Amino acid sequence: MNRAELIKQIRAKKSFLCVGLDPDAEKIPKHIIEEEEDPIYEFNKQIIEATAPYCVAFKPNTAFYEAYGLSGIDSLEKTIKYIKTNHPDHFLIADAKRGDIGNTSSMYAKAFFKRLNADAITVAPYMGSDSVKPFLQFENKWAIVLGLTSNEGSVDFQQQKFDGRDFYLHVIETCAKWGNENNMMFVVGATKAQMLEEIRKIAPNHFLLVPGVGAQGGSLEDVCKYGLTKDIGLLINSSRGIIYASQGEDFAEKALIEAKKMAEQMKHFIK
Amino acid sequence: MNRAELIKQIRAKKSFLCVGLDPDAEKIPKHIIEEEEDPIYEFNKQIIEATAPYCVAFKPNTAFYEAYGLSGIDSLEKTIKYIKTNHPDHFLIADAKRGDIGNTSSMYAKAFFKRLNADAITVAPYMGSDSVKPFLQFENKWAIVLGLTSNEGSVDFQQQKFDGRDFYLHVIETCAKWGNENNMMFVVGATKAQMLEEIRKIAPNHFLLVPGVGAQGGSLEDVCKYGLTKDIGLLINSSRGIIYASQGEDFAEKALIEAKKMAEQMKHFIK
Repeated sequence: MNRAELIKQIRAKKSFLCVGLDPDAEKIPKHIIEEEEDPIYEFNKQIIEATAPYCVAFKPNTAFYEAYGLSGIDSLEKTIKYIKTNHPDHFLIADAKRGDIGNTSSMYAKAFFKRLNADAITVAPYMGSDSVKPFLQFENKWAIVLGLTSNEGSVDFQQQKFDGRDFYLHVIETCAKWGNENNMMFVVGATKAQMLEEIRKIAPNHFLLVPGVGAQGGSLEDVCKYGLTKDIGLLINSSRGIIYASQGEDFAEKALIEAKKMAEQMKHFIK
Repeated sequence: MNRAELIKQIRAKKSFLCVGLDPDAEKIPKHIIEEEEDPIYEFNKQIIEATAPYCVAFKPNTAFYEAYGLSGIDSLEKTIKYIKTNHPDHFLIADAKRGDIGNTSSMYAKAFFKRLNADAITVAPYMGSDSVKPFLQFENKWAIVLGLTSNEGSVDFQQQKFDGRDFYLHVIETCAKWGNENNMMFVVGATKAQMLEEIRKIAPNHFLLVPGVGAQGGSLEDVCKYGLTKDIGLLINSSRGIIYASQGEDFAEKALIEAKKMAEQMKHFIK
């Protein structure tokens, strides 16, 4: 999916919500676990159908599938195929945080873009240019580079002073040179919304994938205040707050309510 | 496998060689591709049997398996099981370069340590403490944190000056505080062997996993000169130089010769 198509979807739906598909067997409703042959896939399908009208993107995190080995990978592949078949207008992010030496990153890029047909993959920047660039070689595909993450560990390196300013700014500025607004985005945690102001100075038009609104304490209003661009430029992710809004039989219905609530808040920020 | 057991293996074999199992369908000998139902697994098995007497560790890089989807993951699981069953004294490193927010890193740790039964996993440090610590919670299991990698992109961030010294030194020093010599190692590329001198000042006893000797130009002698400790403290990885020494029917025999050659060079450095 290219940038124009993504923006068109956002304007059509008046939402820039991304739903994180992080299925955890300990949190999936019991009746799904007990009754279904592939509970992860079934859980995802119901979440997808409930939330699709209110979001523009889905983001499965690969850890939650790899944890179940072959059957988990099978659930992931089926989930992606299901989205691509039934909701082709949704942007699909593989949250895999990959990154390796050049020829190895190329293997990952092929795996996620060609085999799985994801639109985007999250990428860890520590290994530098040749670890990121292979993800930029595919038409209408995206590398979403980790910039400032929403976890507590972001203080350890990302927020350390580097030449007088935070290291994550140096990372975003450097990585931005390897790609452009049409093949690169950045992960920027919502828990530090004001930092978006600095980020927008060095990445004024890049889309930002923003985790941490809701469950992790970030505020949608702050994120929009500092992060919105004329093309929206934001994808706000929510995982737990939506998919585990209920762990009972009404989980899909409750997920719908939470997704709708977020989309209705977002509407006010889209001109 | 714990530290004492690893050192014992190294002393017994007089080798600290790690063989990287990075199977690429374009490089695996044609007769294997044509004749075998699972050519990756068959290729690996023959490489493992040929090189096991000369190495103490095997390191499959997950990218080379994920590239083939479910069947690739199946080959990876079978390969690990094969090693654990037939060569239980070999140290098994899943070269996966994972790292995510705390609860998600925990999922990866379970996947690699519990399900796959790897002894170690390589970990990307950019997301900080809570992304690394979950890999340190398993007895006799190891996180091998990326310090200074052997690729050209290592200049982009790792070798940038940070408080007057290279950033990777700050990363290694910081991460070392989260674990100890019994559950943490560092990746340090051989292409910059002299940098090992600085690294040994801040991580005097940690094992270092060293890629880049041979194919990528690093010298074994330099690595040993600056990196060896009283407990050896080094695992030197070679992938392409061994497993693709020949792409003909004699590939296993040629892999054996290359592994043996490296082990014989290593012997001189073990007192």
